[in-house]
Amino acid sequence: MKLYTFFRSSAAFRVRIALNLKGLTYEPIPKVFANNEHRAADYLALNPQGLIPALALDSDDGEVLSQSLAIMEYLDEKHPTPPFLPADALGRARVRSMTLAIVADLHPLNNLRVLNYLRREFKQDDQGVADWYRHWVTAGFQGLEQQARRHSKAGRHCYGDALSLVDICLVPQMYNARRFETDLSPFPTLVAISTHLESLPQFAAARPEVQPDAV
Amino acid sequence: MKLYTFFRSSAAFRVRIALNLKGLTYEPIPKVFANNEHRAADYLALNPQGLIPALALDSDDGEVLSQSLAIMEYLDEKHPTPPFLPADALGRARVRSMTLAIVADLHPLNNLRVLNYLRREFKQDDQGVADWYRHWVTAGFQGLEQQARRHSKAGRHCYGDALSLVDICLVPQMYNARRFETDLSPFPTLVAISTHLESLPQFAAARPEVQPDAV
Repeated sequence: MKLYTFFRSSAAFRVRIALNLKGLTYEPIPKVFANNEHRAADYLALNPQGLIPALALDSDDGEVLSQSLAIMEYLDEKHPTPPFLPADALGRARVRSMTLAIVADLHPLNNLRVLNYLRREFKQDDQGVADWYRHWVTAGFQGLEQQARRHSKAGRHCYGDALSLVDICLVPQMYNARRFETDLSPFPTLVAISTHLESLPQFAAARPEVQPDAV
Repeated sequence: MKLYTFFRSSAAFRVRIALNLKGLTYEPIPKVFANNEHRAADYLALNPQGLIPALALDSDDGEVLSQSLAIMEYLDEKHPTPPFLPADALGRARVRSMTLAIVADLHPLNNLRVLNYLRREFKQDDQGVADWYRHWVTAGFQGLEQQARRHSKAGRHCYGDALSLVDICLVPQMYNARRFETDLSPFPTLVAISTHLESLPQFAAARPEVQPDAV
């Protein structure tokens, strides 16, 4: 498989973790955001949404899948071990809800294209952009911290005592929160879980700074 | 079941459609955004994310599910007819990708809480807010139009010739796009699909203006 990726992309970070956890090898195809390579015609032909990541399958005529959560659900259906979702419908709903708190309600607001819009159209400086960034991380983590307190068994995973989709999404989001110097003291449960997960080799190998395109 | 809802919420609109399609009855519990009722302690105890919608189940001790997409996947697992996803893994990945283009990369940017932030912190007026709104609708619909052209069979559904999650998300997003007077001429496929879907009684009954809390 080929993964269209960018070392710092939080959504690509998720898919790198997911591929590592499933024990799947892939060829990284870096796209440089600063050069707008993800908006070039050749990439848009593969992924009309023009976002990173995308995963080109070896099967299905090299079909290119997009959207990190759709890719992770697909990987989980095709390669069930280790599972990314609980075995019961209620558990799956809870994990998907926690996952979407990051994937839908937090991360898209802090995407690079959005921060660029703030600078370009609203004339925001580094301070204005950082305030925006931290505001939405904090808003998103507030609910997630409560849900993790309710559902984490031993403070090592967000839900129960096994790995799930929300863990895969938490670590990249925590990485970004630290990068923007967000105050994480209100979120001890999330910090403890992320710290445990970051020690696992499949998570560590997916970190931005160890990717071939890291600068 | 009880649906915590707000007539104009696009995410609640999705869940109303989904419940209608599955033939499930529910009691609407309106939350007035202007009064910040979705941030009150009693609601946060039920849904720590503090967003609308949430669905209180009759089973599982009245468990409250949050996040529209997690709710729709749960309803589909528990009530398989009519299906919200294709039968094959590749089809499911494609539908989830198109769905997430709306759920993750478009709608959260145009949420009321975000528009309020633009007014409050960036001192944006109606024009600045509307420009922002239309920018992200247009960006999101560009990719989705291409994907629908590729995958729609007869211009009545976004994927193949059957209803799926992305159709349920498209109609509320199209409703909002019109409300903000977005130029829809570049998106004839999406407009045709939405127009067909809007004629179905399960979609029509979910429209904001026919909800009990509409003002």
